[in-house]
Amino acid sequence: MDWSTNRLCRLLGTRLPIIQGGMIYMSGARLAAAVANAGGLGLLGSGSMRPDLFRDQLRKCRTLTDRPFGVNVPLLYSHSAEILEIALAEGVRLFVTSAGSPRRAIGRLKDRGCTVLHVVASPALAVKCEDAGCDAVVCEGFEAGGHNGREELTTLVLVPQCVAAVTIPVVAAGGIATGAQWAACMALGADGVQIGTRFAMTQESSGHAAFKARVAAAAFDETMLMMKKHIPVRLLRNRFTERVAELEARGASRDELVELLGQGRARRGMLEGDLDEGELEIGQVSGMIGDVPTVAEVVARLEAGYAEAAGRLG
Amino acid sequence: MDWSTNRLCRLLGTRLPIIQGGMIYMSGARLAAAVANAGGLGLLGSGSMRPDLFRDQLRKCRTLTDRPFGVNVPLLYSHSAEILEIALAEGVRLFVTSAGSPRRAIGRLKDRGCTVLHVVASPALAVKCEDAGCDAVVCEGFEAGGHNGREELTTLVLVPQCVAAVTIPVVAAGGIATGAQWAACMALGADGVQIGTRFAMTQESSGHAAFKARVAAAAFDETMLMMKKHIPVRLLRNRFTERVAELEARGASRDELVELLGQGRARRGMLEGDLDEGELEIGQVSGMIGDVPTVAEVVARLEAGYAEAAGRLG
Repeated sequence: MDWSTNRLCRLLGTRLPIIQGGMIYMSGARLAAAVANAGGLGLLGSGSMRPDLFRDQLRKCRTLTDRPFGVNVPLLYSHSAEILEIALAEGVRLFVTSAGSPRRAIGRLKDRGCTVLHVVASPALAVKCEDAGCDAVVCEGFEAGGHNGREELTTLVLVPQCVAAVTIPVVAAGGIATGAQWAACMALGADGVQIGTRFAMTQESSGHAAFKARVAAAAFDETMLMMKKHIPVRLLRNRFTERVAELEARGASRDELVELLGQGRARRGMLEGDLDEGELEIGQVSGMIGDVPTVAEVVARLEAGYAEAAGRLG
Repeated sequence: MDWSTNRLCRLLGTRLPIIQGGMIYMSGARLAAAVANAGGLGLLGSGSMRPDLFRDQLRKCRTLTDRPFGVNVPLLYSHSAEILEIALAEGVRLFVTSAGSPRRAIGRLKDRGCTVLHVVASPALAVKCEDAGCDAVVCEGFEAGGHNGREELTTLVLVPQCVAAVTIPVVAAGGIATGAQWAACMALGADGVQIGTRFAMTQESSGHAAFKARVAAAAFDETMLMMKKHIPVRLLRNRFTERVAELEARGASRDELVELLGQGRARRGMLEGDLDEGELEIGQVSGMIGDVPTVAEVVARLEAGYAEAAGRLG
């Protein structure tokens, strides 16, 4: 299928209107470059990288692809300004910002001629992004893995409201692992999709092998949105989330939750493979995923599945 | 568009693969007949009717349409067996059962030659329905109004898993108010859709005018899935749900929630129009709905929106 007139492809300079979500501990240079080489937009997930590692990964990514790639920057982290400056100095011009107001970074990035997308969980924030000068919005539903909005709007309900609310391109995210789900989002009026979990579950993702094996074995009902008194986050159930659930059931305070969470749990779970005590961030769609193929294979399946689904609508 | 080869239309004998959800206090004879006359499957929602009223409504519906219509029967209510016998005696042969195991009713209904669909919130229950002899499953996601599953699977993630798990027709439900959302569900492989909230918000629905006006004014973030320690239910926020939220935040027990809920709150809110103390069951998609047209107008918009969305996929 020819996407050359698709406005997200034109904005990003990609063959396909597919963005690989910038995920902590999953999306380093290998994953971002593989997605770029397969025709999508690869993103380095800076949220789990110290500045030096981030610079190294940017330079490595450049050696692995000559296609455009971008960077995801969660704006709430203390070192996000430093990350942005490193990316700019290294020549990055495609940014997906998240976790915070787009106004924290948009002025600096637009001054440098960058393309900026911001992640939103509500049509109200989508409007604020358009007003602030963002080039597109990534609308991420309740089913998405990791940190999530308090609104709990699902992708099916969120995306058409954002399409109606803004004129800039809308990228659907949350719950998209197959070509059929991609096609469903295009039917809702999205200009493209951002895919996280399915790309986390590839050979090129930097997640620990034990984490990937655990996700591949996950049943349909094994993720849950938790920690709603702190920052809502979708996690795969394990010993740690059992303790979170106990605290939540008895009405624990935000401080108690933060204390239990402690430091470094996501690293422990996703990068180091501690399946019991780590924080295992992954989307609800993990229940549909049972293997760990290459990125090229995932993209080929997405394209074939899209064509099949589009054909179903006649 | 011609749906004559669609297998849900063939199963139900309808022009369109659209089922109107059987909703308490909303779907009496007027609504079910109007949907039947517009080409969908209308359902009487028996869950809020005493047996005598139910029989009257069945007979009234028969006078308002010569097209097939059906009955929704929540199997957990104490009088559900009586309701089923009245429906059979009055000649109903299309049933959508919900809230309980399909095995509670399937034997009796299949013995009488009925078509039986069961509402599910997981692919595991969809498989049990097929094994039990159901003719189709209605797969209802987290975004749906009223009572909901504990799995919290969204329609986008639930539907393709059910499509993969069973060979009988799959009807998508939850979050569907527009032709674009209908088309999205067909792209996921569904054979048709069940639509609740959009049909509750019509002239022919029996909800109180004040309730409909409140839903029409609802913002995108005004419903929430609550009462998870009792039976999860999606409600529009009001003074009552504020008290539920307070109880839940301090870890109240199931008994405390049940005591606050008391008796007759749904009737009070939806039929009698008490917007403060009533239970206002409605879907997340209510944030996209701002008017109360006729059923015929809703169906015309659905068909036009479907064609437009299908065209987008090229």
